[in-house]
Amino acid sequence: MEKQKVLINGERLKDTIEEFADFGRTEKNGVTRLALSDVDVKARRHFQSLCEQLGMSVVWDDMGNMYAKLPGIDNDQPPVVIGSHLDSVKKGGRFDGTLGVLTGLEVVRTMVENGIKPEIPIIVANITNEEGARFEPSLMASGVLSGRFDKAAMLKSTDVDGITFAEALKKSGYEGKKENRLKEAAAFLELHIEQGPVLESEDIQIGIVECVVGMVCFEIEVTGESDHAGTTPMSMRKDALFAANQLISEIRQKMNRLDDQLVYTVGRMTVSPNIHTVIPNKVVFTIGARHQDGKIIRQVEEIIQGLPNSSGKEKCNVTTTKLWDRHTVWFNEEIVNTLEKSARSLGYSFKRMVSGAGHDAQFIATYIPTAMVFVPSINGKSHDEDELTTWEDCENGVNVILQTVLDLTTDKL
Amino acid sequence: MEKQKVLINGERLKDTIEEFADFGRTEKNGVTRLALSDVDVKARRHFQSLCEQLGMSVVWDDMGNMYAKLPGIDNDQPPVVIGSHLDSVKKGGRFDGTLGVLTGLEVVRTMVENGIKPEIPIIVANITNEEGARFEPSLMASGVLSGRFDKAAMLKSTDVDGITFAEALKKSGYEGKKENRLKEAAAFLELHIEQGPVLESEDIQIGIVECVVGMVCFEIEVTGESDHAGTTPMSMRKDALFAANQLISEIRQKMNRLDDQLVYTVGRMTVSPNIHTVIPNKVVFTIGARHQDGKIIRQVEEIIQGLPNSSGKEKCNVTTTKLWDRHTVWFNEEIVNTLEKSARSLGYSFKRMVSGAGHDAQFIATYIPTAMVFVPSINGKSHDEDELTTWEDCENGVNVILQTVLDLTTDKL
Repeated sequence: MEKQKVLINGERLKDTIEEFADFGRTEKNGVTRLALSDVDVKARRHFQSLCEQLGMSVVWDDMGNMYAKLPGIDNDQPPVVIGSHLDSVKKGGRFDGTLGVLTGLEVVRTMVENGIKPEIPIIVANITNEEGARFEPSLMASGVLSGRFDKAAMLKSTDVDGITFAEALKKSGYEGKKENRLKEAAAFLELHIEQGPVLESEDIQIGIVECVVGMVCFEIEVTGESDHAGTTPMSMRKDALFAANQLISEIRQKMNRLDDQLVYTVGRMTVSPNIHTVIPNKVVFTIGARHQDGKIIRQVEEIIQGLPNSSGKEKCNVTTTKLWDRHTVWFNEEIVNTLEKSARSLGYSFKRMVSGAGHDAQFIATYIPTAMVFVPSINGKSHDEDELTTWEDCENGVNVILQTVLDLTTDKL
Repeated sequence: MEKQKVLINGERLKDTIEEFADFGRTEKNGVTRLALSDVDVKARRHFQSLCEQLGMSVVWDDMGNMYAKLPGIDNDQPPVVIGSHLDSVKKGGRFDGTLGVLTGLEVVRTMVENGIKPEIPIIVANITNEEGARFEPSLMASGVLSGRFDKAAMLKSTDVDGITFAEALKKSGYEGKKENRLKEAAAFLELHIEQGPVLESEDIQIGIVECVVGMVCFEIEVTGESDHAGTTPMSMRKDALFAANQLISEIRQKMNRLDDQLVYTVGRMTVSPNIHTVIPNKVVFTIGARHQDGKIIRQVEEIIQGLPNSSGKEKCNVTTTKLWDRHTVWFNEEIVNTLEKSARSLGYSFKRMVSGAGHDAQFIATYIPTAMVFVPSINGKSHDEDELTTWEDCENGVNVILQTVLDLTTDKL
């Protein structure tokens, strides 16, 4: 006979999310809680206090990452880690990041109140400065943990007031020891809002995230001649805007043939001299594309790199510069399977999906078996005061993590 | 037997143009001579002095327009006026405007040295602030002369330093009486550089300008939604940039079917929020179109006003606002014919053409029989230090005006 499932306390989860939203709540019910700001430090202290009340020990490392540890029966085994971030963008939402940290807290609360002692330790982690909204780059601390970013360079990153990350970290009281950094672990689990419209539109409760998709971003510069808009016949123009327009049409036509899951965006475009009576002599635009399959990304690159020889450039000169790229990060298959099994066992509708946005989990995945779970974002909104996920969806997501943690930490010895 | 043709002194014309270029000459051999600036006042004084040396009387009116009058045998008859402007844009060229004023000077010099006394007076006019580069709007003083602009409003126009046109005019010493304004005249003749590439590319020496073309300018606002570029599937986007791109393609396709002589330009475009990782939620662009035929302009308006219902708007909202329009100004047919006859009699290659740019002549044409002559602009450049017209082309153009003035002022009584 199957054991009755242990479930989290949805009401308590909701109350705790709202409690944390008070640290930086905006007029329109969003949150501004920039990394290591006063309200972030208050949120950190509250998180520390709540964890300590549960009998967890809380430490932090040299990047300010916080780790609240619930002892396991065998406390020397690598832990299962549940984590995300408490910092937000300016005028962001209540759920982005915070949900993932409070998932860990709710999982531990549920286990403690049910007298479930894990066989291996459980760590709830708050990773510093995921957003990069105050100190660039985003994913700063997980980048240092994974060896991708240079710590010395990160410490020098400054906010708009000229305060360095090092100064803000020192002032926060959460500058800890390097030896406390997250090292070997059995798993890293992150619950996050989707930040996109797919789950809601398909009426699915749980997204099992298989990867953070790779991307490539180019800058295209189109150079023509800025002649008089009244006196230059159409046939004699070198109109950089019309050329750019033609090139974007060509990009869309070719990209749309590649794969349904490919997303691409011309997010930035500047026109010079940008005067209504002068033919534009320069247009610079970016084109970023994301897809999980490196082959598709290579096809995207070929399309973009072919633009300088396109007939669509209309007598203008075209150069392309790759601004950056990143490869797809595939999550740990076993963990993904376990998450899926948990969702199924709880009776939730679910689908496997990709993450188009970046997360700390993608860096941590390079040295710890990692996977993520998404819950629906209403209207796909995030980084916005309108960000919203229903309480029920939050509860479901945390239950999937609880079930997975139970799977990974009990009946193992 | 035909009389031997009187011709102007090309060397003297060249020297005089270079003399005037010294009033505000830039490092790159262009000219900065903003209206009523110190160098403009110096140029005005020099112009006045050269005219007085020829026995002309110089007066100015309440907008600072200068009129140098060579008496006619019957001095009470309406004069023939040759005019343009001595002011320039910032970092403009040596020819734009100045050529037309010095044409008048050279015509009178030639007549005086050849002992030709005109039967009716000849006036050489320097019209104030054609460019509008220091005090908006352009064509300011001709706008007041023709009753199109309100003088009181013009006087309040300020430059970047907060100086009003009224203050600058007073300081210049060229604030004259309203009664001196240009009134009835037999003709107004303006020689100007083409400011476009047509004459040069067709290897034609003289352009006989039949009209200043009408135009219409719209602002188009496309509104979508600024979702995350990584997490929003293509099919669920409301991408204002892609919609704008599609609309511009549609505009081009339809406009290109209208008429070869139609010119249209998307000169200004702004994208919001203009961040490479965010789908643009707003694009605002202008579209200006010019053509001599009002029916074509109305078809342009129909195309633009149809955009809000276009399938190309891709789920975005589209609004169109007409910023302004102006009707085509047709020049006086008799004067146009006389100019053409002069060009033919001098053996120059010529063509009838339109002016895509605005000129004081278009306002003066509303109350004086007016026409213009163009000479080739190398590479079509103007409002630029690279502006260039060959000395030979300048000379040819002035000869066409001289021949026309002789036609209009001798053997008439």
